[in-house]
Amino acid sequence: MLTNIRSDRVRSVRSLSRRSVRERTGRFVVDGPQGVREAIRYAAERVDDLYVTSVALERHDVIVQSALEAGVRVHETDDAVLEAMSDTESPQGLLAVVETRTSTLDEVLASSPRLVVLLTSVRDPGNAGTVVRGADAFGADAVLLTDGSVDVHSPKVVRSTAGSLFHLPVVTGLDVDVTLDALAAHGIRTFAADGVGETLLPDVDVSGPHAWVLGNEAWGLPAEVRGRCSDVVRVPISERVESLNLAMAATICLATSAGATRRS
Amino acid sequence: MLTNIRSDRVRSVRSLSRRSVRERTGRFVVDGPQGVREAIRYAAERVDDLYVTSVALERHDVIVQSALEAGVRVHETDDAVLEAMSDTESPQGLLAVVETRTSTLDEVLASSPRLVVLLTSVRDPGNAGTVVRGADAFGADAVLLTDGSVDVHSPKVVRSTAGSLFHLPVVTGLDVDVTLDALAAHGIRTFAADGVGETLLPDVDVSGPHAWVLGNEAWGLPAEVRGRCSDVVRVPISERVESLNLAMAATICLATSAGATRRS
Repeated sequence: MLTNIRSDRVRSVRSLSRRSVRERTGRFVVDGPQGVREAIRYAAERVDDLYVTSVALERHDVIVQSALEAGVRVHETDDAVLEAMSDTESPQGLLAVVETRTSTLDEVLASSPRLVVLLTSVRDPGNAGTVVRGADAFGADAVLLTDGSVDVHSPKVVRSTAGSLFHLPVVTGLDVDVTLDALAAHGIRTFAADGVGETLLPDVDVSGPHAWVLGNEAWGLPAEVRGRCSDVVRVPISERVESLNLAMAATICLATSAGATRRS
Repeated sequence: MLTNIRSDRVRSVRSLSRRSVRERTGRFVVDGPQGVREAIRYAAERVDDLYVTSVALERHDVIVQSALEAGVRVHETDDAVLEAMSDTESPQGLLAVVETRTSTLDEVLASSPRLVVLLTSVRDPGNAGTVVRGADAFGADAVLLTDGSVDVHSPKVVRSTAGSLFHLPVVTGLDVDVTLDALAAHGIRTFAADGVGETLLPDVDVSGPHAWVLGNEAWGLPAEVRGRCSDVVRVPISERVESLNLAMAATICLATSAGATRRS
């Protein structure tokens, strides 16, 4: 059982809360049973180590068993070690160190995607994570993020995705112009979701391959990006409301694409 | 200009971050330009005092002017005083103390509502605030909260509503059984939104008056509450995803009710 909170191992796991360390080591932390379970189900070959407290070992024995069967190194720790490793205030007793793997835009395009999300300059971890979760829930084929977006492997984003990070390809560090060109070249229509849009969501034809393009929480999409999209689409809302938040808007657009809201 | 961060006034505003103080005094704090602007637009008679830093006084002169015209007492403060009054780490220079006013269930029902949201045991401030914002955006007539839900006047909820708290009636402290009975007696259908629902959202008839009933983030709606609703409705999602989060589910249901997603 690991009990020394000042060990090199604990320090090294804890340091993965820093983006620079994640980028240097190509590793990130997944905290809590839901994320760990999905990491083992969908990406066991990338899970280096699983740390589990005695209580979690009993409560989540199915997860731990599947980790062992997948050849993951499992370490029992006391509560203090798990707390020291985690960046949350109340970790849930299970924490995995996972190898980062992102896809490339070419890989995504080669798979003939029908539904894609492109996040440009999205900075809030909760928003980014919720969009990844929503993209997964509504069957999107990939989430693309431009350079200047939040790091999808930061602990807060990983938690907000609730395991969805392991379900669909995520591409990071993209140039927005190059990406819009590539989507267009592959016959994927690009719908900028923005409160200034003239086209209302119910009027959009979501039957063909398309991408939802979302901008920063505060300033939305720059005019030049909107201008390069196939259409600029607005979710119709009450005029006394200034805007929807980013995650809400993305969720509604994705649910509409999936036909989850109303039969056409 | 107010400059003494240890004054009784500062202490008294700051103490409104505690629920017990809010309940005793019937006051709460609205922080930031968006919330303050909506408070003055829609509920100026309930705004006791507005505190503004010198920078905000220039930047938000339209808001301050409208406050003065509405007879609100405006106080200039230095940054330290505003920070001491606020419970956020980076307040935006404007803070109002507002009188709490909630509606009653009878008032809401007397207005013949077409679309209502009932939150039962919702605990997360961000979720509750986002649902209020979504309810407002999609034209709901009221938000109802049962006893045991988060306090809608807590600073985090108020911020998450982005001013929507002042746009529509909010009723708090309700008993869930009494409320479901009252809704039914007024011909308002009740749709429990829950992942266990047999009815899919696209199949629900949202043309008549109805209420979306949402449960706690972690455990959803108790079976006895679901059993008392007209229908239990599920947003169709990919089977590899365990659930949508509460705010996402609520947003999608409300957008569907409003016809914001697809023409029927």
